[in-house]
Order: sequence, then structure tokens, then C-alpha cells
Amino acid sequence: MEKKAVEKLEALGKDIVRDIDSGRNPRFVTAARTRSNILFDKKEGFLKLGSAKEERSFINVAQSKRFMQTIAIAAKCHKFLAEDLHTTIRGLFYQLKFSLGEDVDESIFSEQSESNPLIEDLEVAIGVKREELNLNATRRGVLAGNMKVVDTSGGERVEMDCSRTGRTGWSIPSDVDNEIDFVDIKAKYVLVVEKDAIWQRLNEDKFWRKENCILITPQGQATRGTRRLIRKLADRGLPIYVFTDSDAWGWYIYWTIKTGSINLAYMGGGVATPEARFLGVTISDLDKYKFLSKLTIKASDVDIKRAQEMLQYEWIKKHKEWVNELERMIKGKIKLEQDALQGPSLTFVGDYIREKIKNNDVLP
Amino acid sequence: MEKKAVEKLEALGKDIVRDIDSGRNPRFVTAARTRSNILFDKKEGFLKLGSAKEERSFINVAQSKRFMQTIAIAAKCHKFLAEDLHTTIRGLFYQLKFSLGEDVDESIFSEQSESNPLIEDLEVAIGVKREELNLNATRRGVLAGNMKVVDTSGGERVEMDCSRTGRTGWSIPSDVDNEIDFVDIKAKYVLVVEKDAIWQRLNEDKFWRKENCILITPQGQATRGTRRLIRKLADRGLPIYVFTDSDAWGWYIYWTIKTGSINLAYMGGGVATPEARFLGVTISDLDKYKFLSKLTIKASDVDIKRAQEMLQYEWIKKHKEWVNELERMIKGKIKLEQDALQGPSLTFVGDYIREKIKNNDVLP
Repeated sequence: MEKKAVEKLEALGKDIVRDIDSGRNPRFVTAARTRSNILFDKKEGFLKLGSAKEERSFINVAQSKRFMQTIAIAAKCHKFLAEDLHTTIRGLFYQLKFSLGEDVDESIFSEQSESNPLIEDLEVAIGVKREELNLNATRRGVLAGNMKVVDTSGGERVEMDCSRTGRTGWSIPSDVDNEIDFVDIKAKYVLVVEKDAIWQRLNEDKFWRKENCILITPQGQATRGTRRLIRKLADRGLPIYVFTDSDAWGWYIYWTIKTGSINLAYMGGGVATPEARFLGVTISDLDKYKFLSKLTIKASDVDIKRAQEMLQYEWIKKHKEWVNELERMIKGKIKLEQDALQGPSLTFVGDYIREKIKNNDVLP
Repeated sequence: MEKKAVEKLEALGKDIVRDIDSGRNPRFVTAARTRSNILFDKKEGFLKLGSAKEERSFINVAQSKRFMQTIAIAAKCHKFLAEDLHTTIRGLFYQLKFSLGEDVDESIFSEQSESNPLIEDLEVAIGVKREELNLNATRRGVLAGNMKVVDTSGGERVEMDCSRTGRTGWSIPSDVDNEIDFVDIKAKYVLVVEKDAIWQRLNEDKFWRKENCILITPQGQATRGTRRLIRKLADRGLPIYVFTDSDAWGWYIYWTIKTGSINLAYMGGGVATPEARFLGVTISDLDKYKFLSKLTIKASDVDIKRAQEMLQYEWIKKHKEWVNELERMIKGKIKLEQDALQGPSLTFVGDYIREKIKNNDVLP
């Protein structure tokens, strides 16, 4: 994988040298990441970039500085790959500030906000993910279940058994593609639970062992690494169930895992899992589990507004179950947390999930 | 440990029954957690509660409801211990809402904010930590190094080797005291680095193996679990070095690890490590590492204000190194991030730490 990134960086560099040698204006082409070029692929079921392209060129008053910055970023990433060392976009920013300052005006990169979009430009232009450029993103998320992780980074082979992690679980890293493999996957499905508290509750019950599933929590919104790992587990044929609060934030977490997000539309299907199904909690649960009616919370204005927005999305409108959910929450001005399932007994949350999966009582 | 908590809960219950049987007003005594009763113990070097006590009693218009709520919390925790199951304070809140709703006015607990101070009341009154009442707090923080974790919760013995965790490390749980042990500690010191990005950088360099240290990141502000684990490692005789940004947030992280915090003053020395030393980054580093001068950032108003406040603390004033640091940052209006050490090369951050420790170039 990394060799591929090196080759692509070098091809970009050679093209630019060729332009210069031939007296042409150095340039490269990237996909437009403007709002109008982000579209929902109805057939595939995820957000991706359209076909609009943009050219970045050096001899262009508006682009000259950014062009040079992007090439500096490419050179640094090439160096990181040669060194076989990783850093973050913050570390990259300081490397740029340090070395450009030596012989060039040091204000070339004064804010990290300047370098971030250029990294995306580079990712899109040469078709690699930043993880393949040895740039780590924020990591968050925990996993337990019947599978093993084989990490071969740093010339060392480490095998971690995700069924032997006690109370803690295995931390999901930023990069789940390079020098890492997932083996001996014996689970039947993947359960993604929004909150770490619920993950811990289910882990203590050894829910993943009893049900033979892989239990993941993104610990809130899923990072790139966690979204990518869910995609990879779906590629192994495992059904993916997502279990969140029934509120604006919970839905956002679900739809981001399922369809991707505007910000990462340029990564398209690589970080989206359209096969994912929504397990709960739902407002309709109130009909089945009477005790929940006294455990609801008042929906905030944000929740109501978000529900109203969601009702406008074409990919939501076509699912009457979601329309029904959203309309009930707007009308009743209530929301429901997954923690509420602990009301009758601490272990009830597991019973709830089992019944939902057994009856395939899930939303699309 | 847990048996102790059960016994203490039962003693509280029996005292109350005895009061009722004798026709006395049921009551219990707890330490006052008011600002005036939080003091800095100069000799020990941490924040703790003073000797002021407060009585909670049932036949008291102002306290009757809270008294009843506290007893309900105690009863629930007793049940959790009997069941050998854990939850969070959110899960406890829903259990209270559920069961009190059955035969009592269901508005008894309408907001979780009502139950939180009562949990602290209970912890202080009977002298146990919430972790011993089977209540998990938020967890965050990662560790790698030459030591093993033995987790015996849930009747199963799991041994995790913290030198065999690849790119991920071992996640620090909420409870590091019960049914868990830390063995085969071969490291010579503990290095706590504020940011996960820097932890990952050092972990990739196998810094902890080369230097034979335990490498921890609290991933920002340290949780109860991480603070408690640092305390326990210091109890094993390991020196503790803390490495943060040179800004308001970084200092706060350091002082919280070292002296505890106002919020957790009731836990006193259990979550404070006065032996901790501040490794960097410091404003004085600018004198030694010339390249850093072009990698500083403008200090925010919050940073300046916080530095001015810190100059007023008696435990800071007595350390001229800290006074010097703070005055330089106020005067220069600059701050410095630990990430900046990646400027000259990605591995420089390790060289920096090695030199600081070798020369004992640390702040108190």
C-alpha cells in the first residue's frame, strides 16, 4: 500500500518537473470538493464526489502560493514514507513551518487551517488516503469480540486477541489498512453502540461472547479509522447493526457510518457502509416497552430542527419507518437515550438487542 | 475492596434503621465540600477537604428530599454490588427514575444533575470511591511499556502485556483498583504526555522500550482512572514526568495530576501525585533550542489570564522557575506546543525528552 503512495507522489513530482523542463506552467488536476460536486449516489447509497475537476497551477496569481504549499506537503509526505515514520497533520504543519522558514519567507504557513485543505487536495489528486501518506488522524473507538488483530508495523509482529481484553477492549487506531490485518474472525455480526458506557455494560455481560458478535463503540461520532474498520468488517460479509440514542446526535452517528459525510465525500465508499441497519433506540420502542414512557427526555430545539431537516432528505423520505420515527419525535417533542434501557435492570439492554436482532426489528 | 463498600453501605443502613426504631431523626454526617473547606495541604502537596462536617437529616424541610434520594442511591449501589454488575451515574439515574416511579412521585429524580452531588455525598460519608460502588466514570487514556495488566473481573483472568500492543497501547479503564493488578513492572520511570499524537509518535519510535519507561497519554485532561493509575505507579517508586504544551490547558493538566483538583478534593491524595515533575515544553526551551523561536504561537487571552492567576497561587510563587516561566509567557504573549518539537525531524521529540531527563532539567 505504502509503495503505491510513494509511486504516486513521485509520478506527481515527475510530471511537474517535466512541465518545468518543457517551459509549461506546472499544474495538476484534482476533483472539485465544492458543495455542488458532492452528491448522494442513490444506487450505491453513499456520498461521493461528482465528476467536476479543478486545476491547480503555479503561474496563476490566485493559486501560486497554494500550489507551492501543496508541493511542499507532497515532499514532506514523501520524506515521511522514506523514513517509515508517521505523524499528524499538526506535526506536518510544524515541519513545514520549520523547513520553509530556513530559506523562504516564514509566513508561508502561518496557520494550520491553511494546510488542511491542501492535504485533501493532494489526497484527491493522487488518489491516496492520508493514512497512506503516513499522516495519522485522531483515533477513538474500542472493540471486543471473537477476532484477532495482527499489527506488523515497525518490523515487529504483534497479535492481539480481541476476546482477551478484559474490561478495556482493543483501541481502534487511525490506520486500519497498512501493516495491520484482522484474522480469525469468528463473529456472526457487528454491533456498533454509540456510547462507551453501554459498550462497557455489554462487555461486562460478555454479550459479544454469548451472541458471538463483534462489539464496537465509536465513543460518539465515528472517526475515519472506526468508519473504515466497520467498512472492512462489512466486506467480510458481517451484518452491521448500529445502536444509538434516538436524538439528533445519534442519528447523525448512524447516517455518517452508513452513507459517509460531506467532509469525507472525497473518500466515498471507503468510509461508508450502506448495508448498516439501525437497531435502536427508536421512538416506536415506546409502544413495545411501556416502562420507557417515563424515561423519555424532552427533545431540544436542535433535535427537532434536525428531525425536520432529515425529513427533507430524499434517501430518508423513501423509508416510511424513518418518516414515522421523525414525525413522532417532532410531535411528541421527546427523545430517548440508550442508557434508559438500564432502567428495569442493568442487563436489560442485552435482552433488548437480542430481541431486536432475532425479529429483525431494525430500520433501514 | 468491594466487600468493604458493601459493609459500609450496610452500616449506614443499619444506623438509619436504628435511628428510626428509636424514634430519632434519621441522619448521617458527611464532610463539607464547600469552597471554604477545600484547602491545599502544604506539607503533603495536594488539595483536600478540611475538617468541616455537615449533617444530612430526614426531618428537615431543606434536606428531606435529598436525604431520601441519597438513601435510594445507596440502596441501588448495594444492589449493583450484590449483582456484581457495573454501570455509570447515568445508568444509576435511569434505575432511580424507573423504580421510584413505580410507587412514588416520579419527579423525585427529574435531572441527573440532582443525583451527581448526592453520589459524592455518599462517597464522602462512608469513605468509598464511586468505583467501589460499581459506578464507572468516563475513561480515557492509553499506556504502553514494560509491564503487565492482570484483569480478573467477571471471574476470568486476562493478562495483557503492555509491551505487546502494537500501534494502539492499552486503554486505561475507569477503575484501576478492583479486580485488577499491575505486575512485572520493569520500567524505570513514567512519562505522561498530554497529546495522543505525541504518544503515537513516541510509541512508533519504541521510545518506551529504548528508555525502559511507561508511556502514558491522558489524551488531554486526565480522568479519575488515569490520575489514580499515575498515583499507583508513583507508589511503586517510579518517578513521574509530565510533558505538556506550554499553555493554560497544558499547565492545568500538569497541576491536576500533581495536586489534584477542586472537584475531586474529596478524594485527596488518592488522585494526586505531588512527586510529579514538569518536563516541558517550557518557554525557557527557546534559549536552548533556537529553532523553536519561529515555531511559537500567539498566546490567547485565556492563556495570559491563566498565567496571571497562577502567579497568585502560593504553591507556585515559592518556585522561582515557574514564576519565570509565567512571566516570560505573559511578557512575550507566546505559547509553545509539544508538537513543535517535530519541526527539525519527527524523532527529535524523543531526543528532547532524553536530554531533559538526563540533565534533570525539569520544573517542580
